[in-house]
Amino acid sequence: MKSASITTVGLFGKYQGDGVGTHLVRLGRFLKDRGLKVVVEEDSARALPESVGPSIPLERIGSEIELAIAIGGDGTLLHLARSLAEHAVPVIGVNQGRLGFLTDIPLVDMEREVGRILDGKFQAEHRLLLHAEVHRGGKMLHADRAFNDVIISKGEVARLIEYETYIGEQFVNSARGDGIIIASPTGSTAYAMSAGGPILHPSLPALALVPICPHTLSNRPIVVSADSTVQIVVVGPLPGHAHVTLDGQINYTLQVGDRIFVRRANHSVELLHPLERNHYDVLREKLGWGAKY
Amino acid sequence: MKSASITTVGLFGKYQGDGVGTHLVRLGRFLKDRGLKVVVEEDSARALPESVGPSIPLERIGSEIELAIAIGGDGTLLHLARSLAEHAVPVIGVNQGRLGFLTDIPLVDMEREVGRILDGKFQAEHRLLLHAEVHRGGKMLHADRAFNDVIISKGEVARLIEYETYIGEQFVNSARGDGIIIASPTGSTAYAMSAGGPILHPSLPALALVPICPHTLSNRPIVVSADSTVQIVVVGPLPGHAHVTLDGQINYTLQVGDRIFVRRANHSVELLHPLERNHYDVLREKLGWGAKY
Amino acid sequence: MKSASITTVGLFGKYQGDGVGTHLVRLGRFLKDRGLKVVVEEDSARALPESVGPSIPLERIGSEIELAIAIGGDGTLLHLARSLAEHAVPVIGVNQGRLGFLTDIPLVDMEREVGRILDGKFQAEHRLLLHAEVHRGGKMLHADRAFNDVIISKGEVARLIEYETYIGEQFVNSARGDGIIIASPTGSTAYAMSAGGPILHPSLPALALVPICPHTLSNRPIVVSADSTVQIVVVGPLPGHAHVTLDGQINYTLQVGDRIFVRRANHSVELLHPLERNHYDVLREKLGWGAKY
Amino acid sequence: MKSASITTVGLFGKYQGDGVGTHLVRLGRFLKDRGLKVVVEEDSARALPESVGPSIPLERIGSEIELAIAIGGDGTLLHLARSLAEHAVPVIGVNQGRLGFLTDIPLVDMEREVGRILDGKFQAEHRLLLHAEVHRGGKMLHADRAFNDVIISKGEVARLIEYETYIGEQFVNSARGDGIIIASPTGSTAYAMSAGGPILHPSLPALALVPICPHTLSNRPIVVSADSTVQIVVVGPLPGHAHVTLDGQINYTLQVGDRIFVRRANHSVELLHPLERNHYDVLREKLGWGAKY
Repeated sequence: MKSASITTVGLFGKYQGDGVGTHLVRLGRFLKDRGLKVVVEEDSARALPESVGPSIPLERIGSEIELAIAIGGDGTLLHLARSLAEHAVPVIGVNQGRLGFLTDIPLVDMEREVGRILDGKFQAEHRLLLHAEVHRGGKMLHADRAFNDVIISKGEVARLIEYETYIGEQFVNSARGDGIIIASPTGSTAYAMSAGGPILHPSLPALALVPICPHTLSNRPIVVSADSTVQIVVVGPLPGHAHVTLDGQINYTLQVGDRIFVRRANHSVELLHPLERNHYDVLREKLGWGAKY
Repeated sequence: MKSASITTVGLFGKYQGDGVGTHLVRLGRFLKDRGLKVVVEEDSARALPESVGPSIPLERIGSEIELAIAIGGDGTLLHLARSLAEHAVPVIGVNQGRLGFLTDIPLVDMEREVGRILDGKFQAEHRLLLHAEVHRGGKMLHADRAFNDVIISKGEVARLIEYETYIGEQFVNSARGDGIIIASPTGSTAYAMSAGGPILHPSLPALALVPICPHTLSNRPIVVSADSTVQIVVVGPLPGHAHVTLDGQINYTLQVGDRIFVRRANHSVELLHPLERNHYDVLREKLGWGAKY
Repeated sequence: MKSASITTVGLFGKYQGDGVGTHLVRLGRFLKDRGLKVVVEEDSARALPESVGPSIPLERIGSEIELAIAIGGDGTLLHLARSLAEHAVPVIGVNQGRLGFLTDIPLVDMEREVGRILDGKFQAEHRLLLHAEVHRGGKMLHADRAFNDVIISKGEVARLIEYETYIGEQFVNSARGDGIIIASPTGSTAYAMSAGGPILHPSLPALALVPICPHTLSNRPIVVSADSTVQIVVVGPLPGHAHVTLDGQINYTLQVGDRIFVRRANHSVELLHPLERNHYDVLREKLGWGAKY
Repeated sequence: MKSASITTVGLFGKYQGDGVGTHLVRLGRFLKDRGLKVVVEEDSARALPESVGPSIPLERIGSEIELAIAIGGDGTLLHLARSLAEHAVPVIGVNQGRLGFLTDIPLVDMEREVGRILDGKFQAEHRLLLHAEVHRGGKMLHADRAFNDVIISKGEVARLIEYETYIGEQFVNSARGDGIIIASPTGSTAYAMSAGGPILHPSLPALALVPICPHTLSNRPIVVSADSTVQIVVVGPLPGHAHVTLDGQINYTLQVGDRIFVRRANHSVELLHPLERNHYDVLREKLGWGAKY
């Protein structure tokens, strides 16, 4: 991001977030006082107690702004980052409450930290997005982006799913279990971590394949290059329904024979952080790791 | 079991199991040749190419027989064991294909091993059953038995469930994740093992509480006395549906505030094994553990 | 423990513990003010700035006292509990700093909580001790007690050890890895937890066998009855030295062919806790588990 | 490797390997029949029943040969690969017995597969090596290469080590436990896997940091870019001795305050494989993963 080139900032808030409207108004005023034009994402605008600028739908806002600021949790940011990526709009995340992996500016420091970033004092970080496609009978049914993860998993009454994994042209294995997670480095500290996956440094161009409760105990997490295409084939007989879920926010039902392809998306997400921010400080705080002796 | 007292044997087969009908007929003839009366569980009887005895529904067969023999996999045996427990009918399991934890007599040795057991050469093993109750608003909605496990888990589109765990009167913790498994020793080598739980010796009067993909990484499996009552309280807000599943065969939808109580059932299952059978031989075979040097 | 029967209390402190001497003196005066006789374990007595009573070696103190109070960490208590068990002397643990699993009375509440216990307001809890024997060439070389665990592990330059496990007469498996832990319920929250073992409730009469970095990924923790005798046979060729360690405090070098037998000791440890103490409160505090919603 | 340029082949065998001498002689004759010059690594030469060429010490053999062939296990290959890397000599691994991750040509197919590779039908694979340095008081004490892993761990009587981890200039965390493994992708399927680490694809330019039995349960494996420098600082007080071990073959004692730096070495190892070889086939075979449905 070149701060000199910013004229319009888009604001985003957690839907139904407590009091988020008030904070968005405060932030909007702060930005207008600095001479910037402010627009608000349409759904977020509904939470505002008063207007701070025109509201624009998520689908169109990316081409109207040079910077996005989200107030909420990591979930809020996942959602908009997928949409803004193709417009190369950088994103700042303000957390409302608990420190997030993505939303690393506390609400109390909002004006100071956003001000500094606008002054050109920031670290820019590029995070890879995932691109997932669902194919059935040779046709592509769905194509979407995910920031955290693509999860192929059993439905609620199914006892397990059976699937085959391929990386590029190479067959990896057949497996049974609750499912499999294909996580980006960003997603490696989300659901994939609960399922036993490793923590990937955000800058590592890699994907983690993490089985969920695998039937075979030696089915361990695998980390491959982000230039790989991962293919999961749903194998029958299937004693229930299988699903694919992107970032826990987009969900499709799967059938036996469906193929899910996951690779790095063409666009990445640009996050802007305060200068002194250290990724491991966030991990230490969130995971209760030991501080320096 | 006292072999002298056996006059009637009940036969059970895997529903839709390939060729199971033929094996049931073979076994029925073998038993009749030994002067025993043979009856067949009603659903299993449909698979028979020819009759080997009267068919009786599962609900009534327990009071008509002194011994049950199942041909199939562990799933077949789970089902009938829950029903036969209160009648104190011992069970023999014949596996059709892969060795099972419960069905430990291979089909090729069926007549020889069943014959030996009828001759009084066997080990009897008592396995505890679980009793689960679902309470809502102070009323009991459901009460069932489980042989392997009681699983409280998220529905298919939910991202996680939140729940509190109590053991007896003592509060254990609040947790978020895919759910929790309360496993009997028998169930400790089933789904609970895939979720990271320990192997409990079948004779240990204990229950394992195994969290499924817990959000908090220190949420480890806990093993408590089988004399404990485990209570799981579903806590809201719930971003989807939660379920309780018994042995992967019985399923109920849960609401926020529902309380699931799990304790040892009043009845246990009596399994009859060949004399030389060693539980660890089965584990070694199934888990690929190292043989003696 | 019957509080009426107490006339002499033994005091124990962490060796080289910062300031522990001052706290022991404070406690000694408090007890003498209540009309009790106070003696001090010989090593602990060296830390005292002034005498509060006769000093007696650890080997003899058990027959002189009706109650033991330790100030320090769990390690301090492990040590004396092994010695006092055969004299059936109950133990109170005061933690100097961080809450311990065994030392659950904070220093600031020491007089109040110890006073209440002496007034008969306490919970008594019996914890099983382990008895371990090392046999070589048919002869017993060592026999000791452990409160937490018996660990058979590789030496520092060895790459792994190979061993066979038996439970009672039954062969379990052969395995390779860093070693194996046989933990009591008390020890299940110590080193065994770091190695991936389950948490056993302190009252469960069970032992956990937890492999350390096993070569075979399906080598999972096993929980067996405390009435079992576990036998580990060190198998060659051994590319280094193997060791057996009890409570991290007693250490013997092993040779190929050595057999280590572990079973429940004849004596148990009696811990006295404040009335409102809940084992899960301690776990929640130490493991960062979620509090009630 | 350009096969046209090969005039001299170096042979290596497992020291004290059963019958390895006979196989080396067989291989030597096969190569000489193809008009190649054969030399034998000095230690390996001692195992030969008859000479097949001049023997040369490991330190000097790298500059004399254009191709190395090892018969033995992965351990044999680790050893020579570290030495040959700076000479850019490609390596072929023949396994004597069990399939290895690195030694993927079975002895029975040795002549056929080696012949094909010499005919130019092979896949070349570059694997990164690690470079480790031990610094004390500002001075470098040791500098070595490792192919699999650098392990900082407690000595045999120590109960744990305490250490700080840095990646580049960034502090990661302080931790206590049995130690930490810094593994290359090659080493990710060795000891690191037993300690719970993920499988890294051999071509991924990454390092895995895998804690061994960490005291804090949220201390999970971390995967970082191979361009990172990992720094481990041994922190006191240390209740025993700490060690650093490279590939399980080189070992140094550590003191409090020592700093171990690990980064990618300047040279990599070139492995030559049969054309049809698939890395996941090896994993499936060795880990018992499911074959294609």
